[in-house]
Amino acid sequence: MDNSRYEAGLAKAKSVIGDKLVDKLLNDFKDVAPDMSRFVIEHVWADLFCRPELDVKTRELAAISSLATLGSAPLQLKAHINGALNVGCTPEEIIEVLLQVMALAGVPAAMNAIMSAREVFQERDLLKSVSR
Amino acid sequence: MDNSRYEAGLAKAKSVIGDKLVDKLLNDFKDVAPDMSRFVIEHVWADLFCRPELDVKTRELAAISSLATLGSAPLQLKAHINGALNVGCTPEEIIEVLLQVMALAGVPAAMNAIMSAREVFQERDLLKSVSR
Amino acid sequence: MDNSRYEAGLAKAKSVIGDKLVDKLLNDFKDVAPDMSRFVIEHVWADLFCRPELDVKTRELAAISSLATLGSAPLQLKAHINGALNVGCTPEEIIEVLLQVMALAGVPAAMNAIMSAREVFQERDLLKSVSR
Amino acid sequence: MDNSRYEAGLAKAKSVIGDKLVDKLLNDFKDVAPDMSRFVIEHVWADLFCRPELDVKTRELAAISSLATLGSAPLQLKAHINGALNVGCTPEEIIEVLLQVMALAGVPAAMNAIMSAREVFQERDLLKSVSR
Amino acid sequence: MDNSRYEAGLAKAKSVIGDKLVDKLLNDFKDVAPDMSRFVIEHVWADLFCRPELDVKTRELAAISSLATLGSAPLQLKAHINGALNVGCTPEEIIEVLLQVMALAGVPAAMNAIMSAREVFQERDLLKSVSR
Amino acid sequence: MDNSRYEAGLAKAKSVIGDKLVDKLLNDFKDVAPDMSRFVIEHVWADLFCRPELDVKTRELAAISSLATLGSAPLQLKAHINGALNVGCTPEEIIEVLLQVMALAGVPAAMNAIMSAREVFQERDLLKSVSR
Repeated sequence: MDNSRYEAGLAKAKSVIGDKLVDKLLNDFKDVAPDMSRFVIEHVWADLFCRPELDVKTRELAAISSLATLGSAPLQLKAHINGALNVGCTPEEIIEVLLQVMALAGVPAAMNAIMSAREVFQERDLLKSVSR
Repeated sequence: MDNSRYEAGLAKAKSVIGDKLVDKLLNDFKDVAPDMSRFVIEHVWADLFCRPELDVKTRELAAISSLATLGSAPLQLKAHINGALNVGCTPEEIIEVLLQVMALAGVPAAMNAIMSAREVFQERDLLKSVSR
Repeated sequence: MDNSRYEAGLAKAKSVIGDKLVDKLLNDFKDVAPDMSRFVIEHVWADLFCRPELDVKTRELAAISSLATLGSAPLQLKAHINGALNVGCTPEEIIEVLLQVMALAGVPAAMNAIMSAREVFQERDLLKSVSR
Repeated sequence: MDNSRYEAGLAKAKSVIGDKLVDKLLNDFKDVAPDMSRFVIEHVWADLFCRPELDVKTRELAAISSLATLGSAPLQLKAHINGALNVGCTPEEIIEVLLQVMALAGVPAAMNAIMSAREVFQERDLLKSVSR
Repeated sequence: MDNSRYEAGLAKAKSVIGDKLVDKLLNDFKDVAPDMSRFVIEHVWADLFCRPELDVKTRELAAISSLATLGSAPLQLKAHINGALNVGCTPEEIIEVLLQVMALAGVPAAMNAIMSAREVFQERDLLKSVSR
Repeated sequence: MDNSRYEAGLAKAKSVIGDKLVDKLLNDFKDVAPDMSRFVIEHVWADLFCRPELDVKTRELAAISSLATLGSAPLQLKAHINGALNVGCTPEEIIEVLLQVMALAGVPAAMNAIMSAREVFQERDLLKSVSR
């Protein structure tokens, strides 16, 4: 019945972070806390990320800034770096947000986040386009 | 000699957070740690915020997301909410970034940040345009 | 239509933190981000706090432990200290959770949280019963 | 002379997190900072966890809530998830505390903590009993 | 019987942060959580700060660095800034540690900590000696 | 032209954390965010660590205290533990700073930081000299 929220969230999640990471989200929790994935799909992807008040590129860059600031969520940071690339952000824009984190949350937070970005860029064969 | 960095940073800071908050930055530290303001002007406003890789609106929204995530920097959060409004972000976009922080850093971080935004909107007589 | 979630959450919130704090939650956000209160009512109070897997006293004590650990959410900490007292926790149990925070998150986090508890106990005229 | 505190703490630690994790605590630090283990035994397990003001199940669930909130202490989180199970908490109660962390400290903190819980449940062959 | 630890800790605390702040520590908690002050005196001031492995000036400067990094403990930060001054650190050394926090934990953490230092310096009429 | 800042920072960094870790800093970022290493060399090592207001041993111990407090920067913590040893701090002084972190940021932060110190001591064959 509330299935429409779940379906809308699932579609949005797949369009941003991609089928593979959504499958991982569902699989990681299915035998330990299936409600966790459901809450993420409904609360985050349906209720928040489907709202039209902010374009998805800005959403992803703001999310990356927060996750880098936390410092303790490298998996989620990498998921949203993938998401940012999927919705059209450039590697340069992502790096720029992370350089700015240096001022807001310190050099170690920025350095570790850029190392996470490097892993994603390498997996997607994007490193050449970043380096000068 | 390195004055050009300082001048560029000062101009950028004034154009984003406004003369009054820049004056406060300079005055707050001048009798206790004048190098603090100089580092902020040079390291943050000149070296980071003058870079063309990211438009200033996205910079401000990403900074707001990080500052709300920290939770312990209400003055700096309010300065960048003012900055975001000055460079053309709407109150709705700012609120939207802060609602998203709920998912990334928890409900208390989002609630307190929105209360800071409310103070800024009230000071600028913008509350009416937000409420429905 | 989704009104049942909202109604269930509102009733649960009132039964735990009390009418006055729920009114404050609704009023604080109504002219700046009305969706914030709705999300808190639905996501937190309906979807999480109505779940039968954990008794409400343990929920409140665990929430207090997390909020004291965050260190930057004194208003929310005080709301849940009120909530804990409302659902039958004793001041001694609350203090005991906060003393334990000393080991998990450090002395300053525990000290500041106990000062918040002291304010709540004083407002409710409970200080005499705590002291020995 | 102060040996009684150490002995009481050691016994309590063993009864909660088990002999194997206590041995690891003693061994990890013995050649680098033996006072660290002694302080943990005396300050935490004797002075705090032996206090009768709170039952040990609630202590462990509150500790799990705080450790999940910190986000940067997966080893200690896993030790207390083991402790919670040892003293009679169910996997469902532990998961419920961690779902609640989603609201207090954000989705990434909750997700990573549940992944730590999953590892403990798997080591103890408890995964089947959680999934539905 | 364990009184010697308490007495040693009390004497050390008074010699570092001064009688007035020690009295405040004892008074703040005496009607809400008297064990809190006792634990601080015994665990922190006796067991840790009396150890000869580190001189007290370095201890205080390292403590200030950590408290500024936390960002959510201004009262404790101010107590240790007072402590640092009492044991012979100069205002310049304290500011220097806080400027370094800018790189480790970000500009907002450093700025807010320096504002706390400014308050302490002003209370002790030390501002003139800092400014140039 | 601004090369003198870069050269001064590079020399200072090499003298503190050593050639190998400086090479790693330059290599890690060169194909993803070369400006990151430049900012670290110039903002941190030239502008902050070259300042004469604080001796380098105290700088390193204060940095270690902050990095242990953050809890999410083990690589940077290990770099500065190496730095502290390079500039003449003893393993005992480093451990002492980390024991003190137990009081400021909690037991888990201190335990994880001491485990990082243990790794560095082992790599440098210093474990025997620490244990008693």
